Amino acid sequence: MEPVYDTPRHDALDRLADDTMSPGRVGLQALAGIPDIHPGDDLAAILIECLRRQDMTLRDGDILVIAHKVISKAEGQVVALADVTPSAEAEELARQVNKDPRKVEAILRESTRVVRAVKRPEQEEGTLIAEHRLGFICANAAVDESNVGAEETIILLPQDPDASARALCERLESAFGVNLGIVVTDTFGRPWRMGLVNVAIGLARVPARIDMVGERDAFGRVLSVTMPALADELAAASGLVMGKSDKTPVVLFSGIDWQPCVSSANDLIRPQQEDLFR
Amino acid sequence: MEPVYDTPRHDALDRLADDTMSPGRVGLQALAGIPDIHPGDDLAAILIECLRRQDMTLRDGDILVIAHKVISKAEGQVVALADVTPSAEAEELARQVNKDPRKVEAILRESTRVVRAVKRPEQEEGTLIAEHRLGFICANAAVDESNVGAEETIILLPQDPDASARALCERLESAFGVNLGIVVTDTFGRPWRMGLVNVAIGLARVPARIDMVGERDAFGRVLSVTMPALADELAAASGLVMGKSDKTPVVLFSGIDWQPCVSSANDLIRPQQEDLFR
Repeated sequence: MEPVYDTPRHDALDRLADDTMSPGRVGLQALAGIPDIHPGDDLAAILIECLRRQDMTLRDGDILVIAHKVISKAEGQVVALADVTPSAEAEELARQVNKDPRKVEAILRESTRVVRAVKRPEQEEGTLIAEHRLGFICANAAVDESNVGAEETIILLPQDPDASARALCERLESAFGVNLGIVVTDTFGRPWRMGLVNVAIGLARVPARIDMVGERDAFGRVLSVTMPALADELAAASGLVMGKSDKTPVVLFSGIDWQPCVSSANDLIRPQQEDLFR
Repeated sequence: MEPVYDTPRHDALDRLADDTMSPGRVGLQALAGIPDIHPGDDLAAILIECLRRQDMTLRDGDILVIAHKVISKAEGQVVALADVTPSAEAEELARQVNKDPRKVEAILRESTRVVRAVKRPEQEEGTLIAEHRLGFICANAAVDESNVGAEETIILLPQDPDASARALCERLESAFGVNLGIVVTDTFGRPWRMGLVNVAIGLARVPARIDMVGERDAFGRVLSVTMPALADELAAASGLVMGKSDKTPVVLFSGIDWQPCVSSANDLIRPQQEDLFR
């Protein structure tokens, strides 16, 4: 159907709202110059120095979105495949989906359950959709080979991404004397939709979701189920400037309308009894 | 595990990258003053006038992200429930999930298939996860009651959201003399994750995904599966300033790194043979 343009133009234009409310304005900026991170690095100190060198001033209410890999590396969540001995279960699964049994073993150790194991004929290597010990359901329990910087090495999620986010937040807040929020991300595929997006896997102060239940829509009707996933909106937006192949794992958001709270990425996990797809 | 901070600080700081590449910078701004849209309205003319009144200059490469509801309303994709006669199938499904049979009928007409029908004990009204005729899998085939402006009325997706996006894009491009992109969005729930995010359901010129296969990661290794869903990143980001209960259905993005192409939101739909969850 083609758009209908048969109403006199002035009718609609006469209804243009006159209110001059200030519309939302948000800025995203990637933090450049972050070096390759090694186990034991003081990531907070590195970020503080990078921000200062680039004259990026942090303001009250700014949010930093950080790809988990730099945190995982700093925390030593890196495993040499040579050090992994696959179990019989890992060997069997590895045969099913044509994966390195040591990688499968690492995935199983990171998981509470394999939701689906699949290898399509055209795939060289299959996928294990797994429930990560932190509760996230994702491909290969978020065990990743990319961007680790050494062959035969895999990188895991941080042990406790919320705690990592809180520790970084406190360091950055005292360095700059402002109130901040932090979102730690990973890159996930999705059922039903092609392409990858960043999602939140760790939070400091930033609410996982904005609960609008009880608020009213533009026509005064009470909203009952609208619950924007603020942390995932921030995570997905960070992908606009993060760039997988660039060394820009940190994005500064300014102008976000939010209220700090005690938060956890766990609040983004749909309880199993509400979930129709696992 | 607490972050490890036992490496001398200067070690890491010495490795701070010296390159002064200009980092990505993206701006989002909601367009204020859009009136309630009625069937037959010339939405392009309204948006052009709103942009001009607010001195929002469009530049080459800017992208407008638009909530589908204003497009659906302008195109008359609004149905009075009083005009819908439920089929026997709709009556039966309506009993199962405690929904208005007329709403279920509208959902069935918009769908090719119901993937799951569910009502949990604590829910007043259940959900039909359905495959929309356009291919998107979502709750209630995207049939929505909220923000329609009249009781007993439902709003459907545009007949052809890509075509709607293209028509708007052409009108705005000739009005402002620049090359633009448009993303039309709806708000979807997700399996496994709580909270709602906006996703792309219609595209003009904006690539659905960025295919990075063959590119190299920061360590020179060839990327094989990284395919950021650019259109969904833009859609999700728009939620940061869109606000469900505000009359801000249009968000202007500037500074996005993209190349115009012939695109369709259909490129975001995972082919059924690749999908593990339907």
